[in-house]
Amino acid sequence: MIKQIAVLPGDGIGPEVTGEAVQLLEEVGIQFGHTFHFQYADIGGCALDKTGTPLPEETLQLCRESDAILLGAVGGPKWDHGPGEKRPEAGLLGLRKELQLYANLRPVIVFPALANASSLKAEVLEGVDLMIIRELTGGLYFGQPRGRKQTDQGLAVVDTLYYTEAEIERVLRKAFEIARVRKKHLVSVDKANVLDSSRLWRETADRIGKEYPDVKLEHMLVDNAAMQLVRKPSQFDTVVTENMFGDILSDEAAMLSGSLGMLPSASLSEDGPGLYEPVHGSAPDIAGQNLANPLATFLSVAMMLKYSFHLEKEAQAVEQAIRKVLDDGYRTRDLAQEGEPALSTTEMGEKVRAYL
Amino acid sequence: MIKQIAVLPGDGIGPEVTGEAVQLLEEVGIQFGHTFHFQYADIGGCALDKTGTPLPEETLQLCRESDAILLGAVGGPKWDHGPGEKRPEAGLLGLRKELQLYANLRPVIVFPALANASSLKAEVLEGVDLMIIRELTGGLYFGQPRGRKQTDQGLAVVDTLYYTEAEIERVLRKAFEIARVRKKHLVSVDKANVLDSSRLWRETADRIGKEYPDVKLEHMLVDNAAMQLVRKPSQFDTVVTENMFGDILSDEAAMLSGSLGMLPSASLSEDGPGLYEPVHGSAPDIAGQNLANPLATFLSVAMMLKYSFHLEKEAQAVEQAIRKVLDDGYRTRDLAQEGEPALSTTEMGEKVRAYL
Ligand SMILES: CC(C)[C@H](C(=O)O)[C@@H](O)C(=O)O
Ligand SMILES: CC(C)[C@H](C(=O)O)[C@@H](O)C(=O)O
Repeated sequence: MIKQIAVLPGDGIGPEVTGEAVQLLEEVGIQFGHTFHFQYADIGGCALDKTGTPLPEETLQLCRESDAILLGAVGGPKWDHGPGEKRPEAGLLGLRKELQLYANLRPVIVFPALANASSLKAEVLEGVDLMIIRELTGGLYFGQPRGRKQTDQGLAVVDTLYYTEAEIERVLRKAFEIARVRKKHLVSVDKANVLDSSRLWRETADRIGKEYPDVKLEHMLVDNAAMQLVRKPSQFDTVVTENMFGDILSDEAAMLSGSLGMLPSASLSEDGPGLYEPVHGSAPDIAGQNLANPLATFLSVAMMLKYSFHLEKEAQAVEQAIRKVLDDGYRTRDLAQEGEPALSTTEMGEKVRAYL
Repeated sequence: MIKQIAVLPGDGIGPEVTGEAVQLLEEVGIQFGHTFHFQYADIGGCALDKTGTPLPEETLQLCRESDAILLGAVGGPKWDHGPGEKRPEAGLLGLRKELQLYANLRPVIVFPALANASSLKAEVLEGVDLMIIRELTGGLYFGQPRGRKQTDQGLAVVDTLYYTEAEIERVLRKAFEIARVRKKHLVSVDKANVLDSSRLWRETADRIGKEYPDVKLEHMLVDNAAMQLVRKPSQFDTVVTENMFGDILSDEAAMLSGSLGMLPSASLSEDGPGLYEPVHGSAPDIAGQNLANPLATFLSVAMMLKYSFHLEKEAQAVEQAIRKVLDDGYRTRDLAQEGEPALSTTEMGEKVRAYL
């Protein structure tokens, strides 16, 4: 199989972790007989510095022409004070919108070798294996109107939570499809006791749910979901929710695993290229020091192999290699207990390739 | 001191827990030489059944004329399928808005006697004592326009996140005041990398912060806050945020304590009566069975004594009594370990009065 992959290293530790991920993909190619072509482009703060925009047209063009996109991270204190459209994050949001990457998949896996790093009790983490599907191109993130205005009551500000029924439908359908190949249990999270958008969301879930009689659909209010994720995370299998709720809940759930350095994500569109990126940010404090944990990016590569290229065996080989490396006690600095020795980014990269 | 208290028992277990709370207040009155007058009114589902509206005009009138309001809980499956304005929750939202109860205070206390009930590790809970201040009368809960409409893209739906600068300012000022009498550390939570409303929120916090140079102000993104509450809750002292974020984060934080049955809340206005209610809902499954835990309502009474009546000593006496009852091993059913004996609602009420 021959595939074109757009690599957007971005800011901070982005170049380091994507660098290792590219090498891992090359190793996968060698071992399984595939050819991956990599082409690089700028996004985020580095793109702002070079071109004045966080999402240059040629980056977008490259992504459109690729089979999948690998992204490192965007952002950093250097660019934190610009106006909205001159921030690194605007590049990421623009990419999501332009490519219609409407379904953000955020698996939460607890690696037994790392369970002690979690702030939750071991017995609470038992059996945790959940997938959050967050709507990624609608809601408060993109709705119009937004901004400040003068009113009779003085200065005021507005953001708009807007969804078309079609947008709600497609992400719910995706969630049902995913729940179907998991444990067939879908929790749809909303705030239907307050929001009109949530009431349409809930009705739509009930309607689409009829097409998936084998999947058990449950509704949960977002405040209750925030509680239940801490109280008993093992009750969840597949979770679907709108953009802002998903941002909050998926990061809350990320903490179950105890280490943000381990969490991958995939952002999928109807039929264009998918975007794969680690959940952790650009970590400017450790950038350029060969300290970053590349495993979240490696797990994102596994998701790419699975969701964009349908290479199940290869995806499992990557996950297996990571598991074994952890079981054998290898840790990057963020995972190591005090006093334990730690591998650098490049050493961890080599290790995983060797275990593949 | 003579005070008028409006009691709104509401639905489910509301009448049972407020019943005990009224008796507790009477006992406080006897011991400390105060007179509390109680007047009752309907709200929520029971009001809907009797009058067709979840917030009858006479309830509102009574609240306006009182010095403080004690509320049980609203809602239940019976009323879950009505339209927005015919739901029990609409009564609560209406009361908040009409009385301009803009500052919702949600303390999270971990009782050592109950720490084992939490899903978090004991060492993570050490030193946890935080207060979340949630804006309660603005944002997505009340913004206009809202509702469905037909568009070129088919059916669509909108909710509006709207704040005036003045609304943001008053809740921030309240938060600084509260932080000042706590550990002088205020975390303001927003989503300033995406939302225009959050950017105004953050600027306003910085501006108001100059009036409180003794309080350390920190900004945190809501997704990160959702993580940090699980990862290291003891890093927080006072937290302030907008309505929807506050709904989610305060319920997430509630789980730290391990038992929703223990969490009080206060909702304050500029100079009208405050509203005090337990965080737990109406728990229809155990309603009317003398099983409910009244301690969250008792702790809400303590907040009333403190925030509305400035009776510090009396508030502390109530909290002390609860602590002692717990230390001596008394539990309601929700707190008891398997096999442990449990007190009924009325027995727990008697116990706390006896310990006062
Ligand atoms: C960087 C930011 C705009 C982004 C978001 O809020 O979507 C991030 O938090 C994420 O979850 O990918
Ligand atoms: C009942 C509901 C409308 C309410 C809210 O969302 O504000 C509740 O969850 C709360 O936190 O008091």
